[in-house]
Amino acid sequence: MNGAESLVATLVDQGVDICFANPGTSEMHFLAALGNNPGMRSVLCLFEGVATGAADGWYRMRDEPASTLLHLGPGLANGLANIHNAKRASSGMVNIVGEHSSAHLRHDPPLTSDIEGLARPLSHWVRRAESAGAIAWDTAQAVAKAREHPGQIATLILPGDTSWQDAGAPQLPRAVAARRKAPATERIQHVARVLQSGEPALIILGNKATRGQALLKAGQVAAASGARLGSQFFTARIERGAGRVPIERIPYAVPQAQAFLKGIRHLITVETREPVAFFAYPDKPSLLKHEGTLVHSLVEADEDSELAFDMLLEALGARSVAARLQPRIETPVPSGALNPTTVAHALAAAIPEGCIVVDESLTTGRESMGLTLGALPHDLINNMGGSIGYATPVATGAALACPDRRVLCMVGDGSAMYTIQSLWTQAREGLNVTTIIFANNSYAILKAEYANMGAGTPGERALSMIDIDRPRIDWLAMAKSMGVAAVAVETAEGFHQAMVNSCRGAGPCLIEVRL
Amino acid sequence: MNGAESLVATLVDQGVDICFANPGTSEMHFLAALGNNPGMRSVLCLFEGVATGAADGWYRMRDEPASTLLHLGPGLANGLANIHNAKRASSGMVNIVGEHSSAHLRHDPPLTSDIEGLARPLSHWVRRAESAGAIAWDTAQAVAKAREHPGQIATLILPGDTSWQDAGAPQLPRAVAARRKAPATERIQHVARVLQSGEPALIILGNKATRGQALLKAGQVAAASGARLGSQFFTARIERGAGRVPIERIPYAVPQAQAFLKGIRHLITVETREPVAFFAYPDKPSLLKHEGTLVHSLVEADEDSELAFDMLLEALGARSVAARLQPRIETPVPSGALNPTTVAHALAAAIPEGCIVVDESLTTGRESMGLTLGALPHDLINNMGGSIGYATPVATGAALACPDRRVLCMVGDGSAMYTIQSLWTQAREGLNVTTIIFANNSYAILKAEYANMGAGTPGERALSMIDIDRPRIDWLAMAKSMGVAAVAVETAEGFHQAMVNSCRGAGPCLIEVRL
Repeated sequence: MNGAESLVATLVDQGVDICFANPGTSEMHFLAALGNNPGMRSVLCLFEGVATGAADGWYRMRDEPASTLLHLGPGLANGLANIHNAKRASSGMVNIVGEHSSAHLRHDPPLTSDIEGLARPLSHWVRRAESAGAIAWDTAQAVAKAREHPGQIATLILPGDTSWQDAGAPQLPRAVAARRKAPATERIQHVARVLQSGEPALIILGNKATRGQALLKAGQVAAASGARLGSQFFTARIERGAGRVPIERIPYAVPQAQAFLKGIRHLITVETREPVAFFAYPDKPSLLKHEGTLVHSLVEADEDSELAFDMLLEALGARSVAARLQPRIETPVPSGALNPTTVAHALAAAIPEGCIVVDESLTTGRESMGLTLGALPHDLINNMGGSIGYATPVATGAALACPDRRVLCMVGDGSAMYTIQSLWTQAREGLNVTTIIFANNSYAILKAEYANMGAGTPGERALSMIDIDRPRIDWLAMAKSMGVAAVAVETAEGFHQAMVNSCRGAGPCLIEVRL
Repeated sequence: MNGAESLVATLVDQGVDICFANPGTSEMHFLAALGNNPGMRSVLCLFEGVATGAADGWYRMRDEPASTLLHLGPGLANGLANIHNAKRASSGMVNIVGEHSSAHLRHDPPLTSDIEGLARPLSHWVRRAESAGAIAWDTAQAVAKAREHPGQIATLILPGDTSWQDAGAPQLPRAVAARRKAPATERIQHVARVLQSGEPALIILGNKATRGQALLKAGQVAAASGARLGSQFFTARIERGAGRVPIERIPYAVPQAQAFLKGIRHLITVETREPVAFFAYPDKPSLLKHEGTLVHSLVEADEDSELAFDMLLEALGARSVAARLQPRIETPVPSGALNPTTVAHALAAAIPEGCIVVDESLTTGRESMGLTLGALPHDLINNMGGSIGYATPVATGAALACPDRRVLCMVGDGSAMYTIQSLWTQAREGLNVTTIIFANNSYAILKAEYANMGAGTPGERALSMIDIDRPRIDWLAMAKSMGVAAVAVETAEGFHQAMVNSCRGAGPCLIEVRL
């Protein structure tokens, strides 16, 4: 067994059984090892940002890290923006980065770069594999790191000689299960007293507290105490819709967020921190809470929300209180002009049960997602890092993670262009992804932000850096170029019908929503 | 004048008058400043790798740095692969990277990252602008750094508050002209003695020695001494074709390069170093020269080749020797099947005078470019950093730098997909770029490299990571999606005719060469 084979065998042994790959010459032994190990699924991506974003999507739905294969420093660099997004979403990931062999590096060949230097700012753990014999241990450590709670970015650099030299028959270390810490009892008691005070309180849920048993128990706490349940504007994954515990969403824009938070005396944070503006504006604050609001941490990022809510319910004497669940709202199919409201209504009417909604719709979908709260139960995934071009790769990974579920990927035209190569992988793998392009032919969000920044009204030349209408992107041709069926819609009923149609069959499709 | 306006005014004042931009919210004041300064041309790119690659292309043709505008750490990250390529090509570049305002950063909002950490591995100079008042000086230093010989990567981080605060009326520092050092006289004398020995010698020209007066004088030295003139397999820009001093190209593959270099007693390097294999292979050396070959540096990277050749001609007493120039070879238009030879013949017959050939054709064009040596005079640009996805952005920047010249951008299908968004900017700006896609539906080079690496013959699963034929990319649809006219060709004569047609009119087009 050579080093590359040892690496792949260890990944599989530790439960990492998918690799999003964009290989180059220095990774040929790794490619051979991928090909020869039936326990590993390899998914080819035509750009590294697709690979890292897909690994993020995989983690969001599986709570298990995927691996990526990247080609030296520049290959890693191409994947960094979506590694940033994954890091901010607390998604675990194991990146394998090929590297020249040690003896070759000293001659500074063209593809040489400081890979550790590139990896470190956005990885929690970086290591250069030093020998074929030790690589199983390096790999096991990378997986253990990625599997921590919250999930971590682990980057393992694989020099060519390490990959092709003999690794012997490595003893594989046992996989380590992820552990979550228990919150301190005093903190629980303190929050119980705050809730019992009857003063207005908002419990802000983050990361893994927005789904499963943790969410249900948060709902019990809310029902027992009268506290409201909220989330940041962006959350890694929320289980929502009919029958789920509903969560209010703190608005994106600073004035609206401030208005939303006004009158709340206590902010109680769960696996997240107090709300912060996404960007800095000359005349607006960074922190969104109202003056006089107190912030209490109930659950830190590395702690166990479900356990915390159990303890809190105990302290409140409310273990048998039932959570209030979201009733089903049958949304009539809208008709007529497309606008944020009719778009949201069409979505609410079309969402199939168990659907995964990946949202990077920005201006179009941003303010109207509340209208889908009573849809059939589904998962909502947001961009946590703010680097656009996350949605189509994340949808790709989510669809691979959950082959029986339909993914609706809502994305602005500007955002979609960053990692549009995702469509090809979706076609190749026959993934159940419906890519919904909101084609307003503009980085529309920047028009609002231009004014928000106090830069005034953009002139013709500034507008030409915001509008992307010359030329208009032909989305039907774009989809066709990568083997994805596509349809354009110009009405709300057309949009609804296109979504319903896409959910009927298997495989990917693209809907251009002409705004 | 605010900080952003001061920055743009300083760039323009220092001669940097184009900005390849992909802005976000934090760069709105910079966008306003770009829009309001008539001395600055802004070119919108839909992906940052297009922006940085275009800046590289601009430098290759102008020998002056362009600027880029990137959106925080992830925006910079998306541009890094082509920054790597530019750095390896010794192209100067000024990157402006937006950043949160200082007061906002402490709250760790979603788009926060270690921008200096991301910039440093691939920049020669990194600075965070600390105040609006001082930004003119920061900018002038960035430009001076970028303009050094060899060109440098300068990255200036622009916090929001620095961009919107008052900069007063900054005193603009005077632009500094790039200086090149003179080589040491002893080195010149030494090389003169080597050349006078009559032993077989190859003068390897790099960077700016492959064009203009430096190349002509190198040709005189060769004619006077009997030395051969060579280049690395990849060179930043070569002036070649009829009437130019011809240069032999050291082959890419290790065995062929070794065979080429066998029998050469002296390697004399000019703005480059001794030949090194691109990748490391288990059973092949890193250094390509033959045992017993001596390496002599004539001109270091930061020195002046033209001056060095003047001094060398003086030492050789050969100032009046004429260089041997490449005669024109009229290549008949080939017909029939497309293969590397007929492709090269078609190219040789079609290249218009003054054409700029950007080559990332890898398997298809790699071994046959010698057949175009007698074409009409043109410039040849190669990928110096090895990160694929360089050609279409570099062609974009080169076309903007030289609006009166046609750019032929030869690119493999796999490579083109990394930065395919370039087509949109080419359509938007009406650029004279003919993108030639060699569609073999494969990362074909990896098939050869798989065997070269000693990984054997790829099995079905490994091949599925190399072939990109499921689905086949529809290049006509891809071009259409971004507003570029396209044609597919399947014969050598069809390929020739398509190139000739594309050179007749203005604006971009794409030729899919079906292999």
